[in-house]
Amino acid sequence: MKDKEYKRTEISSLGEFGLIDHLTKDLPTPNASTLKGVGDDCAVLDYNSGKRVLVTTDMLMEGVHFDLSYTPLKHLGYKAAVVNISDICAMNGTPKQITVSLALSKKFGLEDVEELYAGIRIACEKYGVDIIGGDTSASLTGLAISITCIGEADADKIVYRNGAKENDLICVTGDLGAAYMGLLFLERENKVFQQTGARPDSDGAEFASRNYIIERQLKPEARKDIIEALERIKVVPTSMMDISDGLSSELLHICKQSNVGCRIYEDRIPIDYQTAVMAEEVNMNVTTVALHGGEDYELLFTVPLEMNDVFQNLPGVKIIGHTTKPELGSYLICRDGQEFQLKAQGWNAFTSETGDDTHQNEQQ
Amino acid sequence: MKDKEYKRTEISSLGEFGLIDHLTKDLPTPNASTLKGVGDDCAVLDYNSGKRVLVTTDMLMEGVHFDLSYTPLKHLGYKAAVVNISDICAMNGTPKQITVSLALSKKFGLEDVEELYAGIRIACEKYGVDIIGGDTSASLTGLAISITCIGEADADKIVYRNGAKENDLICVTGDLGAAYMGLLFLERENKVFQQTGARPDSDGAEFASRNYIIERQLKPEARKDIIEALERIKVVPTSMMDISDGLSSELLHICKQSNVGCRIYEDRIPIDYQTAVMAEEVNMNVTTVALHGGEDYELLFTVPLEMNDVFQNLPGVKIIGHTTKPELGSYLICRDGQEFQLKAQGWNAFTSETGDDTHQNEQQ
Repeated sequence: MKDKEYKRTEISSLGEFGLIDHLTKDLPTPNASTLKGVGDDCAVLDYNSGKRVLVTTDMLMEGVHFDLSYTPLKHLGYKAAVVNISDICAMNGTPKQITVSLALSKKFGLEDVEELYAGIRIACEKYGVDIIGGDTSASLTGLAISITCIGEADADKIVYRNGAKENDLICVTGDLGAAYMGLLFLERENKVFQQTGARPDSDGAEFASRNYIIERQLKPEARKDIIEALERIKVVPTSMMDISDGLSSELLHICKQSNVGCRIYEDRIPIDYQTAVMAEEVNMNVTTVALHGGEDYELLFTVPLEMNDVFQNLPGVKIIGHTTKPELGSYLICRDGQEFQLKAQGWNAFTSETGDDTHQNEQQ
Repeated sequence: MKDKEYKRTEISSLGEFGLIDHLTKDLPTPNASTLKGVGDDCAVLDYNSGKRVLVTTDMLMEGVHFDLSYTPLKHLGYKAAVVNISDICAMNGTPKQITVSLALSKKFGLEDVEELYAGIRIACEKYGVDIIGGDTSASLTGLAISITCIGEADADKIVYRNGAKENDLICVTGDLGAAYMGLLFLERENKVFQQTGARPDSDGAEFASRNYIIERQLKPEARKDIIEALERIKVVPTSMMDISDGLSSELLHICKQSNVGCRIYEDRIPIDYQTAVMAEEVNMNVTTVALHGGEDYELLFTVPLEMNDVFQNLPGVKIIGHTTKPELGSYLICRDGQEFQLKAQGWNAFTSETGDDTHQNEQQ
């Protein structure tokens, strides 16, 4: 079977989104219960009730998505659950259940798996999610974690990526770039440790002054609180997604799927002090970090212009710009008035060039 | 973080079921929509409609669950989908949607992934299932496939493992042991190839005479046809599961969860001619092969005794025994009248001793 001659195309030539698009092109969904298949944060199912069922899945591979030399297993479990929960929130839904599949190499003992699972359970308790099933098996090398999260939403309150209208306000929650700066800090400390044998003092002053960016990397949160706030003020955004691959990349998804352009303003992008300090230390433009650093799991959403007063005063939300006619393109307006076209250069699991990509764009 | 002293318990000391039981012990499911969590073929969710939502998930790891030296990628994709679809059928449900997560090492080209995905799509078309989402990422080594399948069932027609009553009939579909014999055949041919360089002629007479057992290993089917037949004759089994780890192991699950014993009869266990021939060649007792060989994905179910006439005449179904009071234990009655206690020694991903386990039990 292996002698067969065949063409070989490098997967990296398509990139992650290219591969998914390629594989799922023309994918039929003949079942009436499938309202929305591939292409948003979650699939949407209709099982003949007032509520819709949301489904999302994510697989994390050791050495690709996480490095156990500086990631505690409990944090990893927490994060693995949260990234899925965040996808349900990004549809304006309420997460309800998860399944957990683990593949474990021989280097893991039972206590390790307990730590990992404890982190998953803590996240589930915090977000009100039930663990309903899963699978454990052996792995020849390393750890693989695959989680599927199921949630619900009222049929008329689901928010897709494709609903933004011209002249909507563009909002983000929390602040951006911190998780990526936390990653660079942890990698730097780990490299020093590997080279010198001097173990980083994670209880010392150096770590204490970085506690925010470290926590953003190791223990991110899903913005269920914002979904609940939107429910309270009875606003359904016109489009929404969570920021896992960087603001720039995600905003371009919304613009493309909604057929709009956008203008966002550098001086409105929310950035934490620790993020700015770390960016300066590693000689990176902090706006680039906020635009392209991934794994923040904040929400990016659009609302009609007349909501301006409401969202100016909603805690945890910042208006960073507005949508435009599609032919006006997608641009960042800098403090000095210069305009730079937004590019989708988020974190890409296939090329593993996060750092490089970001550095290349420092001129922005 | 790594200096911390800690106890280390080998995961293999618990086995696959032991680990799941351990991790999911006392797992709360506070959400009202979670009717059944961990512990059956699927979870059961109630999203306030007449139908219940079923969820199951499975992860397959290269080198543990499949060997690409003799498994075509298209077959692998087909099988990865079918094993999940089979779990929905095992609850008396109808499979509707799947999500597909793939982690790929650099050795895979796009054409390889297309082959794999093509197999998944063929299975989905055959079983009327929609692909609704997923995830692709890099892997440092080998291929990981994680699939979650969602299905539906009428609330009053879901069949669990714990509903068997004393004096029920025990039925199986199709025939047993063929997938395991197919595995041994493919492994034998592969070993000859590795040692001699003489490539097996998969179009030749040797393979042709094994076509059934090879197909049972490489391209198993889910018994959706049986679920449809049960619907037609308006019978809801008292308990049911699919046979992925071997008849003996699965029947003991049903007996334990239903608190019954059982008697099954050696001469009633359905076995294909090719299975018997291969068992003889590798010097194994064919009944042992049928009891402990995994991956047949046939259905095992129980129905009330008064259904005897109906199931005697239902194509594709064989009555192999009956349940008893729990204190009578679980036994196989051999052709010569001897009784052997059933043991759960199916395929175990953690010890990888499938062959050994089966050989050890040849005296049965």
